[in-house]
Amino acid sequence: MTDEPGGRPPVPVVGMVGAGQLARMTCQAAIGLGVGFRVLAGSAADSAAQVCADVQVGDYTSRDDVLAFAAGCDVVTFDHEHVPGPHLAALEKVVAVRPGADALRYTQDKLAMRERLAGLGVSCPRYAPVSSLAEVTAFAAESGWPVVLKAISGGYDGRGVWVCETPDEAAEVLAHPVAVFAEQHIEFDRELAVLAARSPHGQAAVYPVVQTVQRDGICHEVLAPAPGLEPRRAREAQRLVLALAAELDVTGLLAVELFDTGRLLVNELAMRPHNSGHWTIEGAVTSQFEQHLRAVLDLPLGAPRAVAPQVVMANVFGGPDPGVYSRYLHVMAADPDVKIHLYGKQVRPGRKIGHVTVAGDPALGDQLRERAGRAARYLATGED
Amino acid sequence: MTDEPGGRPPVPVVGMVGAGQLARMTCQAAIGLGVGFRVLAGSAADSAAQVCADVQVGDYTSRDDVLAFAAGCDVVTFDHEHVPGPHLAALEKVVAVRPGADALRYTQDKLAMRERLAGLGVSCPRYAPVSSLAEVTAFAAESGWPVVLKAISGGYDGRGVWVCETPDEAAEVLAHPVAVFAEQHIEFDRELAVLAARSPHGQAAVYPVVQTVQRDGICHEVLAPAPGLEPRRAREAQRLVLALAAELDVTGLLAVELFDTGRLLVNELAMRPHNSGHWTIEGAVTSQFEQHLRAVLDLPLGAPRAVAPQVVMANVFGGPDPGVYSRYLHVMAADPDVKIHLYGKQVRPGRKIGHVTVAGDPALGDQLRERAGRAARYLATGED
Repeated sequence: MTDEPGGRPPVPVVGMVGAGQLARMTCQAAIGLGVGFRVLAGSAADSAAQVCADVQVGDYTSRDDVLAFAAGCDVVTFDHEHVPGPHLAALEKVVAVRPGADALRYTQDKLAMRERLAGLGVSCPRYAPVSSLAEVTAFAAESGWPVVLKAISGGYDGRGVWVCETPDEAAEVLAHPVAVFAEQHIEFDRELAVLAARSPHGQAAVYPVVQTVQRDGICHEVLAPAPGLEPRRAREAQRLVLALAAELDVTGLLAVELFDTGRLLVNELAMRPHNSGHWTIEGAVTSQFEQHLRAVLDLPLGAPRAVAPQVVMANVFGGPDPGVYSRYLHVMAADPDVKIHLYGKQVRPGRKIGHVTVAGDPALGDQLRERAGRAARYLATGED
Repeated sequence: MTDEPGGRPPVPVVGMVGAGQLARMTCQAAIGLGVGFRVLAGSAADSAAQVCADVQVGDYTSRDDVLAFAAGCDVVTFDHEHVPGPHLAALEKVVAVRPGADALRYTQDKLAMRERLAGLGVSCPRYAPVSSLAEVTAFAAESGWPVVLKAISGGYDGRGVWVCETPDEAAEVLAHPVAVFAEQHIEFDRELAVLAARSPHGQAAVYPVVQTVQRDGICHEVLAPAPGLEPRRAREAQRLVLALAAELDVTGLLAVELFDTGRLLVNELAMRPHNSGHWTIEGAVTSQFEQHLRAVLDLPLGAPRAVAPQVVMANVFGGPDPGVYSRYLHVMAADPDVKIHLYGKQVRPGRKIGHVTVAGDPALGDQLRERAGRAARYLATGED
């Protein structure tokens, strides 16, 4: 707690390792709650470092930098899952780390995550550790082609998941010095995501189940709630995620991506604010960013209820022209209801640089997907 | 525009003179829009200076400080009305100043405001310039006692309005070296406020009319929309404020406080984010802070529509104990829907240090005033 002289309210300081857009939006929530907020940024130009009043520039792979960052923080949390496990263990000796190293391990080691989930009896795609092409083809003999190869941690060329149609394609992935495991390729009807928060004293809150619309493995749209999902199945998904949060002793947010194949299979986990939860800024009583802060500070959680019948979030990707701001004029004039979030990131083609949100009621004729998609596309490219 | 190397989107920089809670909440909105935001703070401990990444410490009464602040800003705006007129004129030679000096004059000189409104035929309390007790008693002979004396600019002992029941009380005010004018004391049914935004190219948007609940001249609660106000009279108030914004050539926000006596009389004007508009953060599609930025940047305005049937904002005042944060536990646990905003200000008894907002539907039984009042009171005093 910073106990300020002269009667300023003593408030705790939350340190967030990483200074991307998730930290940037968490910074906004911290200002509202009036709590201290500090980021560990790789560079002063990082998305959150541009807007945060308390920035330390350092390297999250350096034990010294991470420990120096934690000094003066009451709680340390993360906007990514890449802090090395040994550093997390060292951190835990000096400060409250939320989520803790034991929980974070399941976001850092995807094979460990699969094994833990399988041990809990959670439905997942079939998987197997593989270290040779022979093992991949043996796996495919049971599960069929294509086979999905996933990096256990990290990846190469900015990717960690490869859908291999043939043994040749699998061999090409195996040729890289990255440990992978094999996973059954799932033909799903759609992808869903569930976001929950859990606090150290064990309170949990879960948001409505959303549908995520991905292209080439990248989230483009989020529909909240997932249209047409039976309440019984939504509750099943929410219960699963609340149970996982408790089982894995998550503190803070837990986002779970699911394949909907008629039944629900767990695809991925994250323990931080998540792209599938950006709709909550305007669309829920409590944004995921405020909720994460409340959870890691062990404050009572806020209501996760949606405030509109339907909310649609669309990501904005960089196009050929970095002049995104100049396109505000058209987007704002065309739709005074669209909420724009720009992250201050360098514009590179295909890079996520912002998002837009619209809320409304499809029963009243609101064309929310069209409106969000149009705004996001125009911001990216200047084309209607 | 800061045209960043390496493809960061070029965005304009808005400079706000003053670093109180209005600048602090504008900072949050600027982060969302991804525009540059800089404050001129009297001290690095000011409410907005604590959370803003771009702070200049300086004195708004110093011409040099104000001009130095403006260098590198694309637009200069204000979280208070105290920058001296000659400095505003100097500023206007080097940067876009919004609202401009001609408009701001009517917030700096209350007698000029009254005269201008009277000239426009706007209904106001009766008033008269006074410089002696004889003039006050002559005014009272027509309007009756009590007489309201108002400082033309500023005031003393933190006040600028005195309700004088007797000539002796008026003499006591006149004994101070502060220029005042006399105003008829209005017996009103309630106080209303209307907030509009207007952009340099002339677009305007007006928020729903709200009721403000004042005690001892200090706003305690805002009810949005004003309960039971006939739509015809609400439209009348909104039209009045839109007309005033155009007549006075306001750019940015215009807040107008009204006495409702059966008819509507203009009490005060402000040309900045206003306490009566804090409910818009959660309660409207576009918060007043985002709207102010859009207006001063000459961007199309956002929808001012409310997103809930009723929104109640209650101010949090300092109590004897500065440990406000320690009371989050109870307030958040008692009502997971209440939205808390703490300004990071030194806690002094009676000082405004934050606000809370709740939204809902009274027709469904939501006890919004009770809930907001309880949360604000508990945060202030720790008493239920």
